[in-house]
Amino acid sequence: MADLSSLLEARYGTTSSGSAAPPAASIAANLTLQTLLQHKSVRSFLPDPLDPGTLEILTAAAQSAATSSNLQTWSAIAITTPSLKSQAATLCGDQAFIRAAPLFIIFCADLARLTTTCAQHGTPGTGLQFLEMYTMAAIDASLAAQNATVAAESLGLGACYVGAARNRPRELASLLSLPPRVVALFGLAVGRPDPGAPPATVKPRLAQDEVVRRETWGQTDESQQKKGAANLAAYDEALADFNTKQGRGDAPAWTYRSAHRIATVESLHGRDIFREVLEERGFKLR
Amino acid sequence: MADLSSLLEARYGTTSSGSAAPPAASIAANLTLQTLLQHKSVRSFLPDPLDPGTLEILTAAAQSAATSSNLQTWSAIAITTPSLKSQAATLCGDQAFIRAAPLFIIFCADLARLTTTCAQHGTPGTGLQFLEMYTMAAIDASLAAQNATVAAESLGLGACYVGAARNRPRELASLLSLPPRVVALFGLAVGRPDPGAPPATVKPRLAQDEVVRRETWGQTDESQQKKGAANLAAYDEALADFNTKQGRGDAPAWTYRSAHRIATVESLHGRDIFREVLEERGFKLR
Repeated sequence: MADLSSLLEARYGTTSSGSAAPPAASIAANLTLQTLLQHKSVRSFLPDPLDPGTLEILTAAAQSAATSSNLQTWSAIAITTPSLKSQAATLCGDQAFIRAAPLFIIFCADLARLTTTCAQHGTPGTGLQFLEMYTMAAIDASLAAQNATVAAESLGLGACYVGAARNRPRELASLLSLPPRVVALFGLAVGRPDPGAPPATVKPRLAQDEVVRRETWGQTDESQQKKGAANLAAYDEALADFNTKQGRGDAPAWTYRSAHRIATVESLHGRDIFREVLEERGFKLR
Repeated sequence: MADLSSLLEARYGTTSSGSAAPPAASIAANLTLQTLLQHKSVRSFLPDPLDPGTLEILTAAAQSAATSSNLQTWSAIAITTPSLKSQAATLCGDQAFIRAAPLFIIFCADLARLTTTCAQHGTPGTGLQFLEMYTMAAIDASLAAQNATVAAESLGLGACYVGAARNRPRELASLLSLPPRVVALFGLAVGRPDPGAPPATVKPRLAQDEVVRRETWGQTDESQQKKGAANLAAYDEALADFNTKQGRGDAPAWTYRSAHRIATVESLHGRDIFREVLEERGFKLR
């Protein structure tokens, strides 16, 4: 088993002042922590189908995640048929790794099931009119998906989330015959990592104190702003170091790339209509 | 290590026709799968502080989750100070277990950091005007939180999500001094389970084929509708069996309870203003 210090160092990268990782303290490592900390997005898959029972275990892991008030406001579609998977891939940013993966799961916010229970018991379902319920469903679906991902990785499989499932939401809903009040939020490609491809790597993240704050957000005074700017500059440096080691020394800085990723309507790759599609699909957003 | 069959049986419960679980097939169990499948919400904590370094490991696990385009559109506030935690508990449904937990983490959608990178690089940040970015941030925060939960459980800790962090969103934002474009989505209470309290239990979930469908949603014809109705009836039965074993034989059926949980504006416990608060806080929802 890897020691926690080296896992943390890979996760936070290196700046000119050394490792950006927090100290590992005295927490005992375990295989689950190792699986979590070593996560990397895998985009090169062997074509082999998954072992029988794999989808059932991923499903059980997903369903084992917490769900708000046990309402279970999510659903998923597991696609394995090559022709259908290829069409889904086309709609999801036309990404070849989705076609290559033996399993592509589309996770959905699902308020259709609750609509059924309301009809069954003659209640008005007024709560369904509010953005709150879309929020709840998106959270439920995401907790479930992350458990499926961790389960897959514990079995030696690789996975990659596909936010591009929101790029052409009308067409994807049509392809999958989604009913009203169900919307695809993201995909998850799953398969056995191709040992012949360049190995996926652990990508450094922002410094811990940039992301998780203590007790309150902290004052928005000048010293805090300086701290934030220093954190972003250090992260630009850590990612540049990482990219150089990966042979991508010419990659733009994170702050630059992230600013451009959301600069224009076009940079959303079609997702500017997502709210409109949600409303078409029967999600009320009061 | 528990065998997968018994873990699956606990997760899907029992109906009059026997176990509702899928067969475990030939997948080899591992401790991570066991941790995932045995998840239960823990609401009785020892008051002991967590071991030094625990929050750092939970944070690293959370940050190791996938994040859309590596934009890392989430933040969290880790509360351990009793007086502040008590005030947060009051705002989060006034739930005593939050006060008892040594750690209460509030997970937030965070578009403030991207606002900073846009200003830094002089880009318009037009993408931030769309519901898409709120969706992305909610998913990012949820994937992160689930990794923190799994990490905590792998360390023998217990956790409980707190959706009631959306009950009084204005007051909670004020208590935590959240800046514009940051909003609290949910909390996570973490601590050592109290061995003197009744043990938390694995709660059965809906049948697999009710939640994860194959290839497409399936026809919305009569046979499908019958299948859905049968799934919901079977789940009412499985949960009734579970509740009876827990000494709560008088609990309402799941379909009844879920229909009433969203029946009226009042049943949202204040969350009907969540969209309004999002907009006040600078989230654009085009």
